[in-house]
Amino acid sequence: MLSPTKINHIALGVTDMEEALHFWQEALGLQLDRVEDVPVEKARVAFFHVGESEIELVQPTSNDTGLANYLEKKGPGIHHLCLEVDDIKAMIDQLISKGVEMINDSARTRDDGKKYAFIHPKSTHGVLVELYELPNIE
Amino acid sequence: MLSPTKINHIALGVTDMEEALHFWQEALGLQLDRVEDVPVEKARVAFFHVGESEIELVQPTSNDTGLANYLEKKGPGIHHLCLEVDDIKAMIDQLISKGVEMINDSARTRDDGKKYAFIHPKSTHGVLVELYELPNIE
Repeated sequence: MLSPTKINHIALGVTDMEEALHFWQEALGLQLDRVEDVPVEKARVAFFHVGESEIELVQPTSNDTGLANYLEKKGPGIHHLCLEVDDIKAMIDQLISKGVEMINDSARTRDDGKKYAFIHPKSTHGVLVELYELPNIE
Repeated sequence: MLSPTKINHIALGVTDMEEALHFWQEALGLQLDRVEDVPVEKARVAFFHVGESEIELVQPTSNDTGLANYLEKKGPGIHHLCLEVDDIKAMIDQLISKGVEMINDSARTRDDGKKYAFIHPKSTHGVLVELYELPNIE
């Protein structure tokens, strides 16, 4: 049976990036890796390394995204948990065979080569879980 | 400046431990480390190792706890994020000096020797953050 290998990141939805950076960077002392605008996702994101994982802050730059709706309804907080797997296709097959509902029935690929798929929170008892398969660096 | 060293665990509030175990263990394939009743916290907890971190499922066993109230209001989902630090007293001092509001102004100690303190979600933009200092094993 396949199993995730690590927590890749935890994504926090934020409504004020500067205030959030103040806490995570200046008060808690995490080292800021990078801040990026991601126009295709209509979001501004900041990444901090913590051990083998990352904490990712995501602020919508438009109010017509899923995250913007989420923040409107629920306020800022932990948005999703991303787990790394070695073979995302095989993991999706395993989950579906166990009756799990996927948001993405097949993996999508980002510009940087990462493959990802979201599991529907219905099947995880309220937790939005993302799966990542990292590209092979050869 | 002090900084957390890793994600110790992510705690998920669940209302039905058997259903939650089905997803995390049988479908996602995580190896169950242990399931425990913790009468002092009026909770049943299950732990899975994922890389250097743990995913912890927590189900209240009484409806008069903070977590039971949280689940009643918000439903099951990610409850808090726990970060490990080397010196929890110094980290609390650092946070307070930066204007961060703590739920626990000084660390408490669990039976197993772990020191912990919660940061108030007011200061973290909606994320309940726990700090852990592990006991020295010498």
